[in-house]
Amino acid sequence: MATYVTLTELFQNREESPTVRRLLFAGVEAFWRDGFHASSTRDIAKRAQLSPAAVYVHFAAKEDLLFTIIRYVAENLRDRLLELAAQGGSPTELLSRLVNAYVALPAHMYKAALVANRDFDSLTPVQRKQIVKIRDELAQIVGNCLATGKESGEFNFEDLSITRMAVLSLCRSTLLWYSPRGKYSPEEIGDYYVRLVLGMIGAASAFDQAPPMLRCAAL
Amino acid sequence: MATYVTLTELFQNREESPTVRRLLFAGVEAFWRDGFHASSTRDIAKRAQLSPAAVYVHFAAKEDLLFTIIRYVAENLRDRLLELAAQGGSPTELLSRLVNAYVALPAHMYKAALVANRDFDSLTPVQRKQIVKIRDELAQIVGNCLATGKESGEFNFEDLSITRMAVLSLCRSTLLWYSPRGKYSPEEIGDYYVRLVLGMIGAASAFDQAPPMLRCAAL
Repeated sequence: MATYVTLTELFQNREESPTVRRLLFAGVEAFWRDGFHASSTRDIAKRAQLSPAAVYVHFAAKEDLLFTIIRYVAENLRDRLLELAAQGGSPTELLSRLVNAYVALPAHMYKAALVANRDFDSLTPVQRKQIVKIRDELAQIVGNCLATGKESGEFNFEDLSITRMAVLSLCRSTLLWYSPRGKYSPEEIGDYYVRLVLGMIGAASAFDQAPPMLRCAAL
Repeated sequence: MATYVTLTELFQNREESPTVRRLLFAGVEAFWRDGFHASSTRDIAKRAQLSPAAVYVHFAAKEDLLFTIIRYVAENLRDRLLELAAQGGSPTELLSRLVNAYVALPAHMYKAALVANRDFDSLTPVQRKQIVKIRDELAQIVGNCLATGKESGEFNFEDLSITRMAVLSLCRSTLLWYSPRGKYSPEEIGDYYVRLVLGMIGAASAFDQAPPMLRCAAL
């Protein structure tokens, strides 16, 4: 259950075969740039410096390559959130760590993470079911934290299910605009979103905690 | 610049030809159910009770049908936000109206609005540019309100550009789960999101204003 910050580390640790790793990286680049439907097996093979026939040795269909990418990315995020949840602390502290990771970790591998969110619908029904199971685990980790904070009175919101979806959607939405050439690092954006989320759910301390980036930006 | 709450009203008022209206409704259903790529002109023609050849009389390519749907939906939302912005009031009052409309109006035509968000990438570059222009107008209306509230000290956030994206993404994300069979109406969800957003941006009154739905749900 080790977790990885970069896509290179993730693929290197999850995948033994260098050929398959090259295909995974080529798939991420092709799907990210052109979309799943517009990417041909020929493109992917070319990017990986393999013949199209060699692709089929490892992935019977383009969907299988997409599925492997999405699964590795989603499992890595889940395992990271589980690690953070195990560290304990108050609901506000835990939620802050979870939101920061939910923003920063995908941003560090933003091409693969964008593909995972955008091209999910192109998976087969059986594959989608497996990914939905991982997404449900992500939602449960965040939801448990929200429920605990609501019970203890630390958070102030009414509807757990809508609020949980709002928090998750907000974290995921950063992928729609994140660029490594932007002015903030993944962790700085994560910190900013922590503050937005704490405000959103009425956490008592939301406006006492200005993360460092914000203090600097105000100078 | 009249605005419409239902898709039926919108298409009836924007499109004179009953045949084109049938094609627009058929396109929404097909794209919503099967996705743009998996929908064939034959499917759409069948749903509209026309021959595939008759489709091409009105729309030279499937992209043109998608573009017309997205344009009508996006312009309708923009015109509604412009109407609301013209009503004046404090930044908190105006933002509350804008967020409610940005959630509720697309939810009332959720199939078309989901297609507009999800299948945007399938438009041609020239078409995308036109839709991006409308989206920029939407972002500007919300952004102007945020900037005014920040200047007056009514809102408390640091980075206008990130905060604006967060507000817009949060409003749009309701389309990923909204169902007319859910327990809340579009307006009730809109009210809930108003509270989430006011909390997120540190509006002073965020937790004084429990919308009616929340008071009821707490009974």
